Amino acid sequence: MQPLQFDSLSFLRGQERIFLIGGEIHYFRVPPDQWASRLKLLKEAGGNCVCTYVPWLLHEPEEGTFILDEPALDVGRFLKLCAEMGLWAIVRPGPYQYSELLNAGLPGWLLENYPQVNARRIDGSPLVWPNGMFVSVSYLHPDFLRLTRRWYKRILPLLAAHQVDRGGAVVAAQIDNELMGVHEWLGSWDYHPLVTGIGHEDGNWPDFVRRRHGDLAAINAAHDSKARTMAEVLPLAESKTDSLADLRRVMDYRDFYFEQISQYALKLIQWMREEGITVPLVHNCASPYMTGYFRETVERCSGQLLLGADHYYNLDLDWDQNQPSPKYASKCLMSMELLRGYGFPPAVFEMPSGSLSDWPPITPSDAACAYGLNLAMGMKGVNYYVFAGGENPAGTGTTCDVYDYGAPVSPAGDIRPLYAAVAGFNRFLDQHRWLASAEQATDCRIGYSLDQSRHPRKLPVDQQMLMPPGEAWSFMRKGLMLTTLCGHWSPQMVDLADEGFVKDTSRPLMVAGSTVMAAQEQRHLVQYLQAGGKLILSPVVPTLDERYRECRILADFLGGVEQKRCSRGAPLASVGEIGGVLINGALFEFTQRPATAEVIARTQLDPATIGIRVQTPGGGSATLLGFHWRQSRREHERLLSQTLLQSGGRPIIECDNPNLWTFVRSDGRQAMLFILNLFSSPMDASIRFRDPTRPEQWHSTPSCKLSAMEVQAWTPDAGCVWRSSSSLSGQALMI
Amino acid sequence: MQPLQFDSLSFLRGQERIFLIGGEIHYFRVPPDQWASRLKLLKEAGGNCVCTYVPWLLHEPEEGTFILDEPALDVGRFLKLCAEMGLWAIVRPGPYQYSELLNAGLPGWLLENYPQVNARRIDGSPLVWPNGMFVSVSYLHPDFLRLTRRWYKRILPLLAAHQVDRGGAVVAAQIDNELMGVHEWLGSWDYHPLVTGIGHEDGNWPDFVRRRHGDLAAINAAHDSKARTMAEVLPLAESKTDSLADLRRVMDYRDFYFEQISQYALKLIQWMREEGITVPLVHNCASPYMTGYFRETVERCSGQLLLGADHYYNLDLDWDQNQPSPKYASKCLMSMELLRGYGFPPAVFEMPSGSLSDWPPITPSDAACAYGLNLAMGMKGVNYYVFAGGENPAGTGTTCDVYDYGAPVSPAGDIRPLYAAVAGFNRFLDQHRWLASAEQATDCRIGYSLDQSRHPRKLPVDQQMLMPPGEAWSFMRKGLMLTTLCGHWSPQMVDLADEGFVKDTSRPLMVAGSTVMAAQEQRHLVQYLQAGGKLILSPVVPTLDERYRECRILADFLGGVEQKRCSRGAPLASVGEIGGVLINGALFEFTQRPATAEVIARTQLDPATIGIRVQTPGGGSATLLGFHWRQSRREHERLLSQTLLQSGGRPIIECDNPNLWTFVRSDGRQAMLFILNLFSSPMDASIRFRDPTRPEQWHSTPSCKLSAMEVQAWTPDAGCVWRSSSSLSGQALMI
Repeated sequence: MQPLQFDSLSFLRGQERIFLIGGEIHYFRVPPDQWASRLKLLKEAGGNCVCTYVPWLLHEPEEGTFILDEPALDVGRFLKLCAEMGLWAIVRPGPYQYSELLNAGLPGWLLENYPQVNARRIDGSPLVWPNGMFVSVSYLHPDFLRLTRRWYKRILPLLAAHQVDRGGAVVAAQIDNELMGVHEWLGSWDYHPLVTGIGHEDGNWPDFVRRRHGDLAAINAAHDSKARTMAEVLPLAESKTDSLADLRRVMDYRDFYFEQISQYALKLIQWMREEGITVPLVHNCASPYMTGYFRETVERCSGQLLLGADHYYNLDLDWDQNQPSPKYASKCLMSMELLRGYGFPPAVFEMPSGSLSDWPPITPSDAACAYGLNLAMGMKGVNYYVFAGGENPAGTGTTCDVYDYGAPVSPAGDIRPLYAAVAGFNRFLDQHRWLASAEQATDCRIGYSLDQSRHPRKLPVDQQMLMPPGEAWSFMRKGLMLTTLCGHWSPQMVDLADEGFVKDTSRPLMVAGSTVMAAQEQRHLVQYLQAGGKLILSPVVPTLDERYRECRILADFLGGVEQKRCSRGAPLASVGEIGGVLINGALFEFTQRPATAEVIARTQLDPATIGIRVQTPGGGSATLLGFHWRQSRREHERLLSQTLLQSGGRPIIECDNPNLWTFVRSDGRQAMLFILNLFSSPMDASIRFRDPTRPEQWHSTPSCKLSAMEVQAWTPDAGCVWRSSSSLSGQALMI
Repeated sequence: MQPLQFDSLSFLRGQERIFLIGGEIHYFRVPPDQWASRLKLLKEAGGNCVCTYVPWLLHEPEEGTFILDEPALDVGRFLKLCAEMGLWAIVRPGPYQYSELLNAGLPGWLLENYPQVNARRIDGSPLVWPNGMFVSVSYLHPDFLRLTRRWYKRILPLLAAHQVDRGGAVVAAQIDNELMGVHEWLGSWDYHPLVTGIGHEDGNWPDFVRRRHGDLAAINAAHDSKARTMAEVLPLAESKTDSLADLRRVMDYRDFYFEQISQYALKLIQWMREEGITVPLVHNCASPYMTGYFRETVERCSGQLLLGADHYYNLDLDWDQNQPSPKYASKCLMSMELLRGYGFPPAVFEMPSGSLSDWPPITPSDAACAYGLNLAMGMKGVNYYVFAGGENPAGTGTTCDVYDYGAPVSPAGDIRPLYAAVAGFNRFLDQHRWLASAEQATDCRIGYSLDQSRHPRKLPVDQQMLMPPGEAWSFMRKGLMLTTLCGHWSPQMVDLADEGFVKDTSRPLMVAGSTVMAAQEQRHLVQYLQAGGKLILSPVVPTLDERYRECRILADFLGGVEQKRCSRGAPLASVGEIGGVLINGALFEFTQRPATAEVIARTQLDPATIGIRVQTPGGGSATLLGFHWRQSRREHERLLSQTLLQSGGRPIIECDNPNLWTFVRSDGRQAMLFILNLFSSPMDASIRFRDPTRPEQWHSTPSCKLSAMEVQAWTPDAGCVWRSSSSLSGQALMI
């Protein structure tokens, strides 16, 4: 078999651009005599890759005793079968597994014999889960690292022997699993004193703070603290962040924690290489909102690690969404655009095909819709989690004895209705392989700041900022992005920290401005304007840099702009021609503005100026809207459309149903229109879209009829070529 | 016209049991020359009643200046038209309106001239909304009462003149609007010192505490405080509740606040009567979860007030549910069962027909599904909010200039697709008028404790209780109730404080046991067992009474039971024949139990006894399950079904699709089966149900096919008589 490769556009097999199509099959949950038949079912369903955890818990059941070739755990034989079947394999040997295994897949003896590896809260108490579902270790604890190293030393050579360059199936290996999840979900980072050096003169934390700020005096100045020694330089609980100095201290620890994660990742990568793993290494981000937490890891492991993400839409009734709803889709888009921004072909390493809960159900038609929307939004690789269910080895399950998962293939090997959804989607990918080379056709851009995504959502100090970074991030997603999608604009997301965007002035750029913006990002926006770019910035022009120091690079370039919060009154605005615009966020008045600025928005009662347009040197223009919103009304789309049009935006899609979302993807030769109905009701629409290869040519669909929760794909020549709901039984997944 | 009456079963027109079918039409938002045509559209859509706010804001625009007969505000003429049209009217003269009006409908001058009426937080600071959407007053502030009284004095005689007993249309009047919402949604009750007497020797709060506990010594004993005077008896912030004494203090204030509300309601009722309102008075509970907060109000206003509830499912993307999902339906069921428990025919005074947001959309098919599910679950009255949109009087809207609302009838008077959903549902009600007399056929019961619903959801002191009341309430809803529905059992909800239930031992009774249970409720359970009842209680047997004092009435009757929390290990249990049951709540071991108790459940690893069955004197039996769960797996349904069957339960419905919910309603002569598909995918099922009038006769449906988000109604004779999706265009609501 050929190796699996990738660049920023897609996965590759030799010169061929392909979709990675994985199916998770756990050899340890399927009887060995049925491994071959399960793999065959995956192959028949259009998969090209098997993914599996390789649980430490099972392979080292007692300390130092390894079981590697017992028939039920003979992962070597399993990988050999994969190769024989012509299936690639991605192995995930941990140390963490999760996968609803006891201790999240860590051996029980590790926790009993080495309780010191348990992560710690800021007060030094152990970070403990209320039930046995998870275990939180301190990733860099020397004992944990030593034991992980020993595990790697035993398991990796075995896996390496089955690599593709040695005639085997293994084309990639995953380090750990959903990094940070075991801390994040308990609401606390790890503050283990031994590991971090908190309370010590030397160690990772004191070193980090010194590196960032300088000597103790500089640190005290930054933190507004009175530490007499480095041992007294302590982190601060986020709930106690009352001042900008406090915020600096809190963010110092947050950044430090993320850097620790990157060190841990680097160690695992190094060990993998030392033990002979030569294939690409991968990792799965647990949740779309955590993608920004991996910035250090992505930077430090550059060229050595492919980051993907897990995209669940239904774990139980209390999960944020139980269907592939707009809420889910907007998270997926954000997730994949961030992965793309990092330079990766967006891979969904855990795509729900089944669920650990039986109820609310994962239905085949919902699932197919989820697959379709991810594809429409840029997915280049997928791994169905799980493709086949099976029985947990005795005493290792935390949610059930039989890990049925409502998977496409039952523990007994029978196929279920969900199988058709998976196979049908894979067949569609196979029929349109050119989509692997496709990119989204876009007519506007949204600049994002990873700094914003890394800020805690709510802090007491927020009240001291007109627009705190966490709130700006929320506005970027729920305002700018959702309104753009509902208005049938096609946004491309760009990282404001990456200067790549500044020369491209072909499409207007929207930015959610926070009081805080890195000096570098402010400079990039200035360069963009100098190049003639059209900027739409709301709700505030930044006044602080990434260390919360005064910084008005952008405001000064704009000729001096000052804003203040508007006092009470109905939150309605007039923006140009559009009146009665609901501002369900905050309103900011421009108290100072360049004399040449054009006033373009006012509050409706007691009119205050809340929108101006400034022409900048070099032919650029900045439209500053002093308000933010969450998408909820047609006026939001109208105000954004008007602003984009005035900024030279040229829409590539027209659609008469504002509830549908639309995406056009093209490889430069062909194009495909995706229409998404993410609601529980049928929808109709007529749609026109520009041919990305001949922008003056419009294509029209006839009146489309979409059933509830359906994605359709259309091409200019063939019309509707795929419906997510087709070939699916109406029967819900039943066990 | 005949008056509108009601008893605990339904609304009545003379001797005739009827559905109240209201449509909200705001005379102040519709041009006067179009009032008649709007009313006609409501009549044609099957409505029998108009509901409207009567905004203080508009009718007393300047202090002391009343506008009552200006053409656009001539509510008298509007009511006259209603009468001419043969439509009843329900008027809602406030003082509060909400309705997306400025200051929630209170006059601006009131807030400017009388800032002292603003509600206060516990620290004395004003309770202020971040935008102009709402205003929080202290309901019992003397100035607010005085000005409300003056408003009532002017408006009520005018409304009274149009009452049904004087030949007019008005059959009911509403006091205030969604009481407590303006405090609850800001996360603080009102602690206005002047109004409550906090910090004073005398006043409502000191009086309340004295009444409850006795003299200062008794109060200090209860609160573990050292107050030297009544002025020092202060409320405590809920976040600071560290001990049972703290909890007592917090709940004292909560109960006090609810009692204040009842005093306010009584005052408004009294003034309504004094000004000549003779028709029934009503009020709308803002949210299903707040229904229990009205206990004092319901008790004190007994016979004088009909309480209904507002059932929204989609206000914006961040709303808890954007479709009539299972989450929504379970709240509606709870809401209506609590209203029924209070003795009212469940009325939904605001049922979404449109939304203040355009997106996510309220679609006709979703809306029809919402109407159907409410009917299936017991709704006897409905008011479509809003039936017709219109323009806000200048400067009074907070969300828009044109209050379009996506209503069935547009501001211009055109009908929209949603009209068909409303009219179709009303027609169905008309064709099956006997449903007004119908009750749910049930085969099991769930006992609820309003005390639990009134507890704050999370408090620090919770850790000192095995099962805090708030958690027990959550288990009752997300465990017992949802699992019962998913298992196709038909629960009747009963109030444990109401001794009415103790003699009826025909069906097993399930109770979510908290560490806290009122002595009276414990006695009722003992009486139920003594009468031969079959009780299923989980996860704990109470040990404290409603004042958090030791109280083991039930535990003692059960022969002495002690429990402790199980330590770590996978949360899997074996219950009778059923293994691998996921316990996604806590597990409690029985450390002491009667010698004769039968062990029926164990933890799966390191077996601990977590379930016992005790035979009690009088032929009763108590099944005690020492764990709780949130419905998520088939095993939950199986364990509950097994337990119900062992407790003599006799199911009345069989259905082979566990994702559908089913309800049978009967008036003793006829029966109707409702099938609910609350998911975004089509579903199939075959269903059998017992005829409620001849319980040995089973009726079968042929294989039913339900489209996404659909409710169907079946009768034994005619088959499917209604589908929520029928006669609806696929076109989503578009503006």
